[in-house]
Amino acid sequence: MPIVFTNRYLGRAIIVLFAVLLAGLGSNAQSQQYPPFDLDTGDPLREAIIPRLVPVLIAEVSPSLGDVTMVNRVNTVTILALWDALAPYHPTAVGAYTRLERRPESDRTQLNMNTATLHAAYHALAGMIPGTEPVWREMLVSAGLDPDDAGMDPGTAVGIGNAAGKGAIAARLHDGYNQTGHYADTTGYEPVNTATELVDPGRWQPDITRRGIGLYTAQQFVTPQMANVEPYSDFDPRDFRAPAPSDSDPANWDAYKAQVDEVLHFSANLSDEQKMLAEIFDNKVVSFGASFQAVSRSLGLSAAENAMADFLVMLAIHDATIPTWQEKRRWDAVRPFSAIRHVYGDETVTAWGGPGKGAMEMPANQWQSYLQEADHPEYPSASSCVCAAQAQAMRRYSGTDALNWVINFPAGSSRVEPGVTPAADLQVTVPTWTDFAHYCGQSRVWAGLHFQAAIDASAAMCAPIGDAAYEYFALLMSGAAPERGPAQALEPDPRQDDRDDES
Amino acid sequence: MPIVFTNRYLGRAIIVLFAVLLAGLGSNAQSQQYPPFDLDTGDPLREAIIPRLVPVLIAEVSPSLGDVTMVNRVNTVTILALWDALAPYHPTAVGAYTRLERRPESDRTQLNMNTATLHAAYHALAGMIPGTEPVWREMLVSAGLDPDDAGMDPGTAVGIGNAAGKGAIAARLHDGYNQTGHYADTTGYEPVNTATELVDPGRWQPDITRRGIGLYTAQQFVTPQMANVEPYSDFDPRDFRAPAPSDSDPANWDAYKAQVDEVLHFSANLSDEQKMLAEIFDNKVVSFGASFQAVSRSLGLSAAENAMADFLVMLAIHDATIPTWQEKRRWDAVRPFSAIRHVYGDETVTAWGGPGKGAMEMPANQWQSYLQEADHPEYPSASSCVCAAQAQAMRRYSGTDALNWVINFPAGSSRVEPGVTPAADLQVTVPTWTDFAHYCGQSRVWAGLHFQAAIDASAAMCAPIGDAAYEYFALLMSGAAPERGPAQALEPDPRQDDRDDES
Repeated sequence: MPIVFTNRYLGRAIIVLFAVLLAGLGSNAQSQQYPPFDLDTGDPLREAIIPRLVPVLIAEVSPSLGDVTMVNRVNTVTILALWDALAPYHPTAVGAYTRLERRPESDRTQLNMNTATLHAAYHALAGMIPGTEPVWREMLVSAGLDPDDAGMDPGTAVGIGNAAGKGAIAARLHDGYNQTGHYADTTGYEPVNTATELVDPGRWQPDITRRGIGLYTAQQFVTPQMANVEPYSDFDPRDFRAPAPSDSDPANWDAYKAQVDEVLHFSANLSDEQKMLAEIFDNKVVSFGASFQAVSRSLGLSAAENAMADFLVMLAIHDATIPTWQEKRRWDAVRPFSAIRHVYGDETVTAWGGPGKGAMEMPANQWQSYLQEADHPEYPSASSCVCAAQAQAMRRYSGTDALNWVINFPAGSSRVEPGVTPAADLQVTVPTWTDFAHYCGQSRVWAGLHFQAAIDASAAMCAPIGDAAYEYFALLMSGAAPERGPAQALEPDPRQDDRDDES
Repeated sequence: MPIVFTNRYLGRAIIVLFAVLLAGLGSNAQSQQYPPFDLDTGDPLREAIIPRLVPVLIAEVSPSLGDVTMVNRVNTVTILALWDALAPYHPTAVGAYTRLERRPESDRTQLNMNTATLHAAYHALAGMIPGTEPVWREMLVSAGLDPDDAGMDPGTAVGIGNAAGKGAIAARLHDGYNQTGHYADTTGYEPVNTATELVDPGRWQPDITRRGIGLYTAQQFVTPQMANVEPYSDFDPRDFRAPAPSDSDPANWDAYKAQVDEVLHFSANLSDEQKMLAEIFDNKVVSFGASFQAVSRSLGLSAAENAMADFLVMLAIHDATIPTWQEKRRWDAVRPFSAIRHVYGDETVTAWGGPGKGAMEMPANQWQSYLQEADHPEYPSASSCVCAAQAQAMRRYSGTDALNWVINFPAGSSRVEPGVTPAADLQVTVPTWTDFAHYCGQSRVWAGLHFQAAIDASAAMCAPIGDAAYEYFALLMSGAAPERGPAQALEPDPRQDDRDDES
């Protein structure tokens, strides 16, 4: 998996994406790109879906894969479709939204499960990412399946897959994400600061980001309405709150300056290991996927068991983001890049000076974080939250805190400092889920994206959501989960602008 | 050239880009992408440089190629390098910045001129677009040249190319564009309106644009400092002014509403021909390049003559943008999308309803232009200006207004409405440069990007810049142009905030 970090992989991934898109437009470039998929013996998620999905996510959803809202939106609905397609082949499991009659044991063949899985993925992904249907049609064709077979007979694998794929889209279409409105904000959020003026140094400021050689845009808070998305598992997001980020209040000047100084200290002393851990945990596809695969391999999960367990990972992450966005919207807290400028202006500070430059002296208002901060307020940390939730869900699933995720970073494989970092091949072992959550959270401070308080608040708030996710997953697995109708948007958080309350 | 408009071409272009980037990273994917270049008989600009440059521009400069500032920045410095590399092989021409000794007639071989051209392009493009050096190294290798041959002997083709390429970068490095500062604004421009609030309905408002399935950003005025860039030709941009856009002043309500209604009328009645002309004139690479190629072919220009005449096209366009940006910065005028919302709010209007939807009724505040408006104030129109300048320069160069540019639009080749528009193969002939400038300008109103006044003001202001460009080009061609030092930024326009003056 670390190969994902080489520019070569990203380049190839994007080539593959476009080659496949071309295929849908009549070119046959695609035929050279993917091996045919073996329906009888293959693993559809790992061999057919993910290799095509990653470049699509890079091109259509999040170029850095660092986004935790849209990437997970796509992944969660897709894995939901797989779950609902596989449940009928399981001895006890039931669908989360699409409830299909259980198939007799004689039907529980790899061929049937793979057929249902690929048809489900096709309808889910084509529905989630407009314009990419050619990619998924080609995926079915590469498996010898007919994308035009729209049969809905729940007694056939094709019918089960089609029903589960279309059912997953329908079940989550109006869940509060505003998918039908291109995920545009439905909460009326407006930042108090502009990209050029920090009116309130305690509040979030959109950053100006550059694409290409000199095209600039200003950030917009991504999907503030995620605070109002219906969770999969059984909890009320309004019961989950993060305390006021008091150190981000400039009225508490000593504390405000102290957390700025802490970020500058880490920036000036970044090790290769810190840089690479920051990069891998910034990549949501890899940090979630590769860590889960370490567990899946150790448990020897089959293709179907792996796909069904992946639903637990994704629903834990999805559900954890809901109270996180609720509290981000409510506290609307300043990012380090703004606070550093506010405290030090054009005074000289020592910090990471940019790709390949290491620590250097610079005017504080030219400081930059090692990674591009995401387009939402700082507190609490979304990455820390979802890692805490995933870690707890995985502990419950595997019955142990042990993880033993071994990450290999080839020399020079950094996205930020390609060819430079790490200086030599680097191997990092993450022994436990506790270490996983720790690295995931701290790496956000190392990278200059967050203050420590945002990490600590997320860990406390989000681990219990991993429990809720596991308990819902266990109910689905045992068949005891009650049927449910399509998800619906929650009422807006009554406290979405309540920044006075201290809890 | 219309093939440029098919998704297939863009897809392939981007595949090629990444394949070539991979090449620089050790893959050999690139070797399959381009045919070897024949130094003795080939046309380096048309066969080696442009096919590699277009995908790079799409990826690194302007995804739509609709940008008139950065795309032309790269193209102009590159073609300058080619001019300075070819001048020594011309009987009378002299370099614009790099003045090299004229080569004896015996040296005027295609081999020498192509060698000098490719070395010049390599150094210019690698210098202009960081990170793409592998693309240009591969270009030289494909021609049997050695990118590591850094010889500067002005008696050799390699030395001439290296000197001209490096010289072009040095000559324009501090010309006011702020290349060393990643082209960030140096004028302190701040919009009076935000993306969410139209404080002054006469002034420019940044638009919110969406990338991928739901990532939103707010526009930033691209390179306001282009008002302070030193022209190539001999004129003072401060002598070129556009009258106040009085109809964009809401105090003149009837006129303000009338120009809004005119844009809505065109939007509701778009023909396939209008849509496709709007698209081709929005693509600066194709509209400038393909129209010039029509002339080049009719005159039977050689590879070297074609490259040298292309410098005239690019310097006319480059120079015309300078007073245009000066006046855009000064008048800071509102775009139609803001004015339509201001006049009609949520009242129902009839207009183009989005890709494939044709004319429909909608709340005015949901109206969208057929093309994404560029990230700079509305008045005067940059496209109209550069087309007027190019047209006049070409009239002077070819001695006639005749153009006879035949454009073929395959059915369904629209970028905005792929597979839908045009309904059938469409051929449009642009008989004269006067028609070229007319279509170029009017298509900006059809597409909902501009009001008519911005088109008329540009045509009047910018045609004379085509004369200035031609006169400078003629001096260079005859050898009478005086030597000059590196370009320097102009003093800021003293009237950059002077919106009271009516001239």
